[in-house]
Amino acid sequence: MSFNTRLRLIQEKRNSLLCVGLDPDLRKIPKDLLVHDDPVGEFCRQIIAATSDLVCAYKLNLAFFEVLGERSWSTLHGVLASIPQGVITIGDAKRGDIGNTAEMYAQSLLGEFKFDASTVNAYMGADSVQPFAKDPEKGVFVLALTSNPGAKDFQYMRTKGKPLFEHVVAKAKKWNDNDNVGLVVGATRPVQLKRIRQLVPSMPLLIPGIGAQGGDVKSAIRHGCDAGGKMAVINVSRSVLYASSGQDFADAARSSVASLCNEMNRYRDRYF
Amino acid sequence: MSFNTRLRLIQEKRNSLLCVGLDPDLRKIPKDLLVHDDPVGEFCRQIIAATSDLVCAYKLNLAFFEVLGERSWSTLHGVLASIPQGVITIGDAKRGDIGNTAEMYAQSLLGEFKFDASTVNAYMGADSVQPFAKDPEKGVFVLALTSNPGAKDFQYMRTKGKPLFEHVVAKAKKWNDNDNVGLVVGATRPVQLKRIRQLVPSMPLLIPGIGAQGGDVKSAIRHGCDAGGKMAVINVSRSVLYASSGQDFADAARSSVASLCNEMNRYRDRYF
Repeated sequence: MSFNTRLRLIQEKRNSLLCVGLDPDLRKIPKDLLVHDDPVGEFCRQIIAATSDLVCAYKLNLAFFEVLGERSWSTLHGVLASIPQGVITIGDAKRGDIGNTAEMYAQSLLGEFKFDASTVNAYMGADSVQPFAKDPEKGVFVLALTSNPGAKDFQYMRTKGKPLFEHVVAKAKKWNDNDNVGLVVGATRPVQLKRIRQLVPSMPLLIPGIGAQGGDVKSAIRHGCDAGGKMAVINVSRSVLYASSGQDFADAARSSVASLCNEMNRYRDRYF
Repeated sequence: MSFNTRLRLIQEKRNSLLCVGLDPDLRKIPKDLLVHDDPVGEFCRQIIAATSDLVCAYKLNLAFFEVLGERSWSTLHGVLASIPQGVITIGDAKRGDIGNTAEMYAQSLLGEFKFDASTVNAYMGADSVQPFAKDPEKGVFVLALTSNPGAKDFQYMRTKGKPLFEHVVAKAKKWNDNDNVGLVVGATRPVQLKRIRQLVPSMPLLIPGIGAQGGDVKSAIRHGCDAGGKMAVINVSRSVLYASSGQDFADAARSSVASLCNEMNRYRDRYF
């Protein structure tokens, strides 16, 4: 089954477009956990246990694991093992390199860690993306228009009548032969999100930037979904992970996820 | 001392612009080494011991270490520890992410592993690059025009009268306040290399693509150096690492490095 179909099915099954972003910062997790052998792993596992019936995906930000050093390998494996079968796991690593090197990154993310999907930076073009997309069961989200301030430096530059990010969208559409390619589009860019959804009516859009970065749930749903109110994967990280800094952090994360999910579903009902 | 000054000094001291790219592929290293506890580490250490008096830098391709799994941490640390003080170490990871995530990648590469420099992908703009450049002693090489076939997909797109890669060059020049920013320009693009050197007369250019990828030493020297015949960091990987597949691999690597270095210095004498 292709990645895009798997994503559609889990979104239906859970009735959820919400993806929790696991960017676990040792400086922000509850102090009580610091006595644990693997505080970051334990934090993530408790967040997952409290939320996994309400989400369609988890996006693991590799930087926040790599910074743990040698133990990051076992932490990552432990966190991934605690995610129930069927829920999509996205390795958010934004890799991008020449073909033989991209093969190695893909082997590590999709082979060793068995992520269901990864994020890639396509500045280096087709051969830097292809190794992540060759298995139809594995998804790849290509950075199109990102949520951060620096997005304005290059992504909006107009060439041949359209901004650079639309050229990336057009290429990604071509690379979608295996029905497993999607795009990253920041929730902080609602106008462009709408435009991109017109260009790719059915491809998955991974939409970060809700909450701490200022993106808006209503626009993300209204403009990010396909015609059936699906295929937007709306990522929320900090406002779920750090909903409480106390011992009740997992319960608080669940409440935050439930509330976001309800909000999203209200907008889905309204617009689709 | 700023990174760019350190680079200039080691190039003078060694009379060498050569950087050996460590992309150690377990499938290609001599079979005899496979009995070793840490075959990839041992391979790299022997290559380094045989070549470190002839090079200005080593570029470690992170993908080829990450693919080793958990042991990659100790392998990387062991390889880095065997590189003599003063020789520049480049963590070729091509990271690029929003500010708080880029901070984490920078902490891992420059803090944990203590690389002297790293490579970054600037598609996400200033805040994705800044964390790698804030310490003047640490260098950052921004991908401008890459050596691979996919470079043609986006990097040449013309906007406001010039190709995208020249816009990246212009931004990188602005980001060079700390005298520690350079650019990656493929040796397979001699015409554009010449153009980029005109745009940034003194910034370091990391030039991959010699050998297996088809780039030419003469053009890399002629067009990549500054006016004093320095500040080009010419990377060679496969033709040095796999100069021999037998037990004499380290001697063969040294011969290959010595011969490349002589060739480069002949062209430096001719053109500078």
